[in-house]
Amino acid sequence: MILCDIGNTFLHFYYRGRVWKEKRNNLSQKDSSEVVIYISVNQESTRSLLLSHPYCFDLTPYMNLDTNYKGLGIDRIAACNAISDGVIIDAGSAITLDIMHDGLHLGGCILPGIAQIQKGFKSISVLDCGINLSVPLDTLPQNTKDAVSYGILKPIILLIENFSKNKKIYFTGGDGKFLSRFFENAIYDDLLIFKGMQNIITAKITSKGIYL
Amino acid sequence: MILCDIGNTFLHFYYRGRVWKEKRNNLSQKDSSEVVIYISVNQESTRSLLLSHPYCFDLTPYMNLDTNYKGLGIDRIAACNAISDGVIIDAGSAITLDIMHDGLHLGGCILPGIAQIQKGFKSISVLDCGINLSVPLDTLPQNTKDAVSYGILKPIILLIENFSKNKKIYFTGGDGKFLSRFFENAIYDDLLIFKGMQNIITAKITSKGIYL
Repeated sequence: MILCDIGNTFLHFYYRGRVWKEKRNNLSQKDSSEVVIYISVNQESTRSLLLSHPYCFDLTPYMNLDTNYKGLGIDRIAACNAISDGVIIDAGSAITLDIMHDGLHLGGCILPGIAQIQKGFKSISVLDCGINLSVPLDTLPQNTKDAVSYGILKPIILLIENFSKNKKIYFTGGDGKFLSRFFENAIYDDLLIFKGMQNIITAKITSKGIYL
Repeated sequence: MILCDIGNTFLHFYYRGRVWKEKRNNLSQKDSSEVVIYISVNQESTRSLLLSHPYCFDLTPYMNLDTNYKGLGIDRIAACNAISDGVIIDAGSAITLDIMHDGLHLGGCILPGIAQIQKGFKSISVLDCGINLSVPLDTLPQNTKDAVSYGILKPIILLIENFSKNKKIYFTGGDGKFLSRFFENAIYDDLLIFKGMQNIITAKITSKGIYL
């Protein structure tokens, strides 16, 4: 059984303890006797997967979450199924924040990813100066590059602080490891979505004797 | 005497108590007996102004500010010359934050403007859903449009709060009026940059008997 989380930029795979990502136009051949169980937020990439592998299974109809939120992305539903209490930050091309409390999803928000925010400066040439990821966030910037870097990172950090309060923070996604360093009560877990998928598979499929 | 602040998107004019903005490719004819005193962060727009009006005066060489910040934009220097204590937020295509204390500039930062941050969602079609400017910022979002709107506005508000602490906040720029509504200790002043220019003109030029 291979797990696959199809995002907007990459297809993320999990197989026997190993995670890796692939671009949709360059998918590797996988053992055709293994089922690929997937969730997806990108139809084009889903088509590429279905064309590249003979035996795929869409987990979407089995996914659910106790929430009032309308239109929650399937990747966020999966990550929320991995924990029952805490804040989940998935920092990729977009950054999503979701709060779980006693197995209930309380709500969430979405901001552009770090690279996307940086693109917001492209139209103003003097501000298109790259990002200093080690800019001090506890002192006031004194030059343009630090001012831009601070203006990208500090609002994200403040939002996460404001969101998480005393809850444990679970980071995942490409920029998750970097962002997790700013918080004491945080862990980085690149398996979070796969753990949520696995919980669903165990609870809804294999426990009912369905063979994949 | 007409004052002009040349930004990245518009040329902003001040004349006899009235302010207005013009695009660089559609500049109006002005009274040719009046000098246009300008500062600029955009060379192309400066050229357009110089071609459209016979008598222009660049205030840049007269501008100064007590600061350790390297590369502060001339429009920010002008705005900082308008006050001696407080936080200045110029919310246009970029949002700049600057702190003044006893006439000294302590530092500042820059983030993309609201419209620019919104563009960061364009590449993800499901998130390109527009912005709800009246999204509640004290409750957790429960749908995609609110989650995106919250993710654009809340980090900006938190950064301004964190920056300003108990200082008075002076908002200017296109989104300044909207953002000022989130703060009690704030005023919106669309003349801030012109007031700073006027202070420089009074202190450095007309007080010395230079005739413009």
